[in-house]
Amino acid sequence: MAERESQIVLGLDPDPGALWPPHGVAKEGGAAEVSRPAERAATAVLAHCRAVIDATAQAVVAVKLQLARFELLGAPGWAALAAVAAHARSLGLLVIADGKRGDIDVSAGAYAAALLGGADSPFGRLDGLGADLVTVNPLMGVDALAPFVAAARASGAGVLVLVRTSNPGAADVEDLNVEGGGAVWERIAVIVDRLGAAGVGAAGLSDVGAVVGATEPGHLARARELMPCATFLLPGVGAQGGRVEDLAAAFAPGRAGGLVTASRSIAGAYLASGGTPEGAARAEAERLRESAWEISGEGVDRRPLAL
Amino acid sequence: MAERESQIVLGLDPDPGALWPPHGVAKEGGAAEVSRPAERAATAVLAHCRAVIDATAQAVVAVKLQLARFELLGAPGWAALAAVAAHARSLGLLVIADGKRGDIDVSAGAYAAALLGGADSPFGRLDGLGADLVTVNPLMGVDALAPFVAAARASGAGVLVLVRTSNPGAADVEDLNVEGGGAVWERIAVIVDRLGAAGVGAAGLSDVGAVVGATEPGHLARARELMPCATFLLPGVGAQGGRVEDLAAAFAPGRAGGLVTASRSIAGAYLASGGTPEGAARAEAERLRESAWEISGEGVDRRPLAL
Repeated sequence: MAERESQIVLGLDPDPGALWPPHGVAKEGGAAEVSRPAERAATAVLAHCRAVIDATAQAVVAVKLQLARFELLGAPGWAALAAVAAHARSLGLLVIADGKRGDIDVSAGAYAAALLGGADSPFGRLDGLGADLVTVNPLMGVDALAPFVAAARASGAGVLVLVRTSNPGAADVEDLNVEGGGAVWERIAVIVDRLGAAGVGAAGLSDVGAVVGATEPGHLARARELMPCATFLLPGVGAQGGRVEDLAAAFAPGRAGGLVTASRSIAGAYLASGGTPEGAARAEAERLRESAWEISGEGVDRRPLAL
Repeated sequence: MAERESQIVLGLDPDPGALWPPHGVAKEGGAAEVSRPAERAATAVLAHCRAVIDATAQAVVAVKLQLARFELLGAPGWAALAAVAAHARSLGLLVIADGKRGDIDVSAGAYAAALLGGADSPFGRLDGLGADLVTVNPLMGVDALAPFVAAARASGAGVLVLVRTSNPGAADVEDLNVEGGGAVWERIAVIVDRLGAAGVGAAGLSDVGAVVGATEPGHLARARELMPCATFLLPGVGAQGGRVEDLAAAFAPGRAGGLVTASRSIAGAYLASGGTPEGAARAEAERLRESAWEISGEGVDRRPLAL
């Protein structure tokens, strides 16, 4: 982050109906196959993700891959996901697997192996996606989170726990007030802080972070109070209405305390601003980078930046 | 369920280290490929799942596929998942995609299309997995559930919302007491009941059901009170310690009100009882079928069975 002076995460959420560059939809091959539409879509999705990454790589520190879009493409989608992650890594970017998985211990362990460092098997080593960070859902409690934390520590990665999400429905469950004080999301924040205590590095940041929506900046200061060492992933800027200018509280532990993620507002910037998709995406990513870097410099605590 | 006199769901949670029939691990092909271990594992997982299904199909009404195990095998895993689902359907079994997905609206829609009925795209129709039921995570609220309900209604399928899970960590968040009364899981139960109101069929059961762990039978009666029309998926029997004999409350709306799911206790029955894996799995599935059918006949309400 220090080297690139950026806290921006490029969200890749590829809608098969809104891809660029042009992908030759009409071109048909020889024999008809059941899987052909998914294979063609996966090829176009991979080309799109590579193009958006290439356009914005200088302004961002990470890519966030929305697993739902790849899952819709079945086996070819999973292959495209791995290829997108490899391309991002080749440009020095971190990879965030945004799958929001959560399950009982043995299944959480399988998800963690799939998205992080893989697992041994009688068939040989099963490769994981090799993500640097993975989003997880805490509804099922600590024993559903612990396998992700363990797998992340074993592979030098980190975990981002959903704490207070950016969607309107976050109010339905996450905002319920609990007897004895605090909302459900604040209780989850306490779990995050405790799980992360053993993983705090030299810069004061932990390997267990939190997803805190940028759409409700009023929650950010309280979230920071409850999770002083957590890196915050801040979704909701752009298409969902959040503004970089409202995120200063996230950066209280230092400039590495917040990752600002934007998806449709970068890949679809040309729809609003005109110009080429590549140029508009680059300009929007750079605009976000500059805003966030400036805001993050106003934090009250200036500990060193190194993770 | 009436035809087979069964409410048993065969959970398929294939551990690559505990597969049967014997799968020839040592057999090596020609050229070495990066993906070979995952491909070999996926081939063995598919053979295992087919064998367990074939052994137990007469005693069960559905298979529940734990998506984490297939995700760990990458693209070959996703292909194996689709093949297992097709095999189960060919024997007249329902397919439950146990992915516990949950995300903002546009992503929830993509997951729903992936696991249920697919989606149109500029590349042609993208096939979904074609599941009959899909498990979903309600932490992010109603707008994260609604796309699953809409997709399920469009394809004649159903949704099973995590309400009170079977793992010990369920106490951490789901059991928090909310100001004004009730635990978090009871508030989620109210959401399930409301979402399902528009999908209640002639037998009094809705297309929005609930996952209620069999490990805490004390919660079942309360869950049934809050969700009178929901089909309950009841995990936790066997390896997690739950007992069929404690599940009578689930069947209050009729024998179709509960689906009893068991995974490791069926596929691994031979480890405890001896005999062949196939024979032991068949015997354990039949034992569970008989117990559940008997218990479910003791319910207080005997509405017709047809869904």
